[in-house]
Amino acid sequence: MDCIFCKIISGEIPSYKVYEDEFTLAILDINPLNPGHVLVLPKKHVVNIEAADETTLCQIVRIVKKAGESLKKNLNAPGYNVLVNNDPVAGQVVPHLHFHVAPRTLDDGLKLWPQKKYKPGEAEAVLNKIKII
Amino acid sequence: MDCIFCKIISGEIPSYKVYEDEFTLAILDINPLNPGHVLVLPKKHVVNIEAADETTLCQIVRIVKKAGESLKKNLNAPGYNVLVNNDPVAGQVVPHLHFHVAPRTLDDGLKLWPQKKYKPGEAEAVLNKIKII
Repeated sequence: MDCIFCKIISGEIPSYKVYEDEFTLAILDINPLNPGHVLVLPKKHVVNIEAADETTLCQIVRIVKKAGESLKKNLNAPGYNVLVNNDPVAGQVVPHLHFHVAPRTLDDGLKLWPQKKYKPGEAEAVLNKIKII
Repeated sequence: MDCIFCKIISGEIPSYKVYEDEFTLAILDINPLNPGHVLVLPKKHVVNIEAADETTLCQIVRIVKKAGESLKKNLNAPGYNVLVNNDPVAGQVVPHLHFHVAPRTLDDGLKLWPQKKYKPGEAEAVLNKIKII
């Protein structure tokens, strides 16, 4: 498997391990948004959220919570962002599912993406397409 | 409880419902990053990830997956971002936990945040503070 995260999981490529259990690995992102930026990944190779079963997603989100708690407690981060770039169009570079957990500071200068407004009727039209009730 | 999401959950304030079950509600964000931007929230009022128990987080991430599948299937989105702004410093406006699921398009112009480089020794120092092994 020519996957950099699989090689990190197997130990073939070194990493900065923040947490590890049977199912999940958490490592430092070596190109962080802010120092302490953690990646949480399943040990099983899955490309993205759709490819992951519910058990795997639960295992990941459990460690996302632990990582966030550590950033708050140990780096005094006043908050953090959790981000999944799901597929290349969304910024996914390594095709092995990973959740970013990035600590924030008051003066880091990172800005949220600009929001839009729906035109009249547009929200209803998109809702009718995507609703899963 | 003076929480806009609790009022949406109770029906006191209307919303565009994408999905609903006993534990979780998914609605359109009325100020979307792109049309079809969904918010997934627990019905139980919890402020952020640290305040949510593991069962609640699992329920949310299960619906995040369903929402993402719907965006891909029904809007032909080639991918999406999942984002949690955890605490005000991270951009959280409503103090009731919610996961954003925002469809992306090739030409939407949204750029990822700039990454940084660790200075020599900096990654090791931060790792020693935050690791939870």
